[in-house]
Amino acid sequence: MKDLLPPGVGIQGERGIAFVIAGPSGAGKSSVISALLSRDPKLSFSVSATTRPRRPDEVHGRDYYFVSEDEFDRLIAEGALLEWTVYQGHRYGTPKTEVLARLEKGLDVVLNVEVRGARAIRAANLGFPVVLVFLVPPSWEELVARVRRRGTESEEALAERLRIAREELQHIPEFDYLVVNDSLEEAVARVEAIIKAERMKIVRCA
Amino acid sequence: MKDLLPPGVGIQGERGIAFVIAGPSGAGKSSVISALLSRDPKLSFSVSATTRPRRPDEVHGRDYYFVSEDEFDRLIAEGALLEWTVYQGHRYGTPKTEVLARLEKGLDVVLNVEVRGARAIRAANLGFPVVLVFLVPPSWEELVARVRRRGTESEEALAERLRIAREELQHIPEFDYLVVNDSLEEAVARVEAIIKAERMKIVRCA
Repeated sequence: MKDLLPPGVGIQGERGIAFVIAGPSGAGKSSVISALLSRDPKLSFSVSATTRPRRPDEVHGRDYYFVSEDEFDRLIAEGALLEWTVYQGHRYGTPKTEVLARLEKGLDVVLNVEVRGARAIRAANLGFPVVLVFLVPPSWEELVARVRRRGTESEEALAERLRIAREELQHIPEFDYLVVNDSLEEAVARVEAIIKAERMKIVRCA
Repeated sequence: MKDLLPPGVGIQGERGIAFVIAGPSGAGKSSVISALLSRDPKLSFSVSATTRPRRPDEVHGRDYYFVSEDEFDRLIAEGALLEWTVYQGHRYGTPKTEVLARLEKGLDVVLNVEVRGARAIRAANLGFPVVLVFLVPPSWEELVARVRRRGTESEEALAERLRIAREELQHIPEFDYLVVNDSLEEAVARVEAIIKAERMKIVRCA
């Protein structure tokens, strides 16, 4: 195919692409990302750092880097984070070197980022394309049901999650794609279509 | 999903989208388009007008509107064509009303357009999104082999087709996506991913 392209022209998939998956509580980001990673060897997950406590089913270095408040302060001070945000009193951030090292190897990177942090990834001007995907449950009713079903929290924490979710939905216009997660299988197929299409985008090379 | 969107925000797939499929001789445009249409009821084909003779396997009104030079002149004079081009001495054009009527019904339209005409579809400012897909064989060698395999033409006509193909490839940067047609099945799946992704694009509504 290369011999058919004019000089200086290529497709986006020849280099690494950063796919940012964000969305409110109950959107199913983690499940969608796990499925994507298990099906596409060119995709790699960028692990975020957080100060929130580890949940029983989570693994340090796989789901998150669980760090202390002091360690998080140091990451910020060193400029080691592409972006960071506060969510329900805990901080979440995206380590820069981890993302860049993979993109430079030509891998695509999937990031699970808080809604308010997603825009910052693009603004960071990584030198690689950034695709912002907003994942939503099929309706507000279903969002409430999913957050409630987790059941690990007080009514106050739940109300707070819903308030934040409402606020996060206002940020949809800052994203490139909206993916509805009505069934996991369908949602994964939708994000896979986005990934496949983005790799075929025609670009001018440097 | 509608109840989750901020006012004035929607996804591109709520309205009609025009998907323009172009590419050099031997790219396999017609086969890819036939397969797409048979698999997606939201897609509809916009039939072009041409002054070239009908091939034995072609049907008037299905593959093309086969018209005389005078009739083509009249279409141009009436402003009935979105774009038209000359290819190997014959004229090809896209009837405007046919495309717009379908888009306004909310259908997506697939257009099989000459490479030099594709850009004009976007420039026509239809008021609907236009997605430009450039289809190519996997290599120049394979392009030559495919054009040769058709075998319906003189060596001169063949050389002319190859010369035109070379020129058409220079227009790749004007397109949005590059799709390699190494196998029909794969090529169709690639265009389907583009269609699916484009429908999920977040847009501000009027």
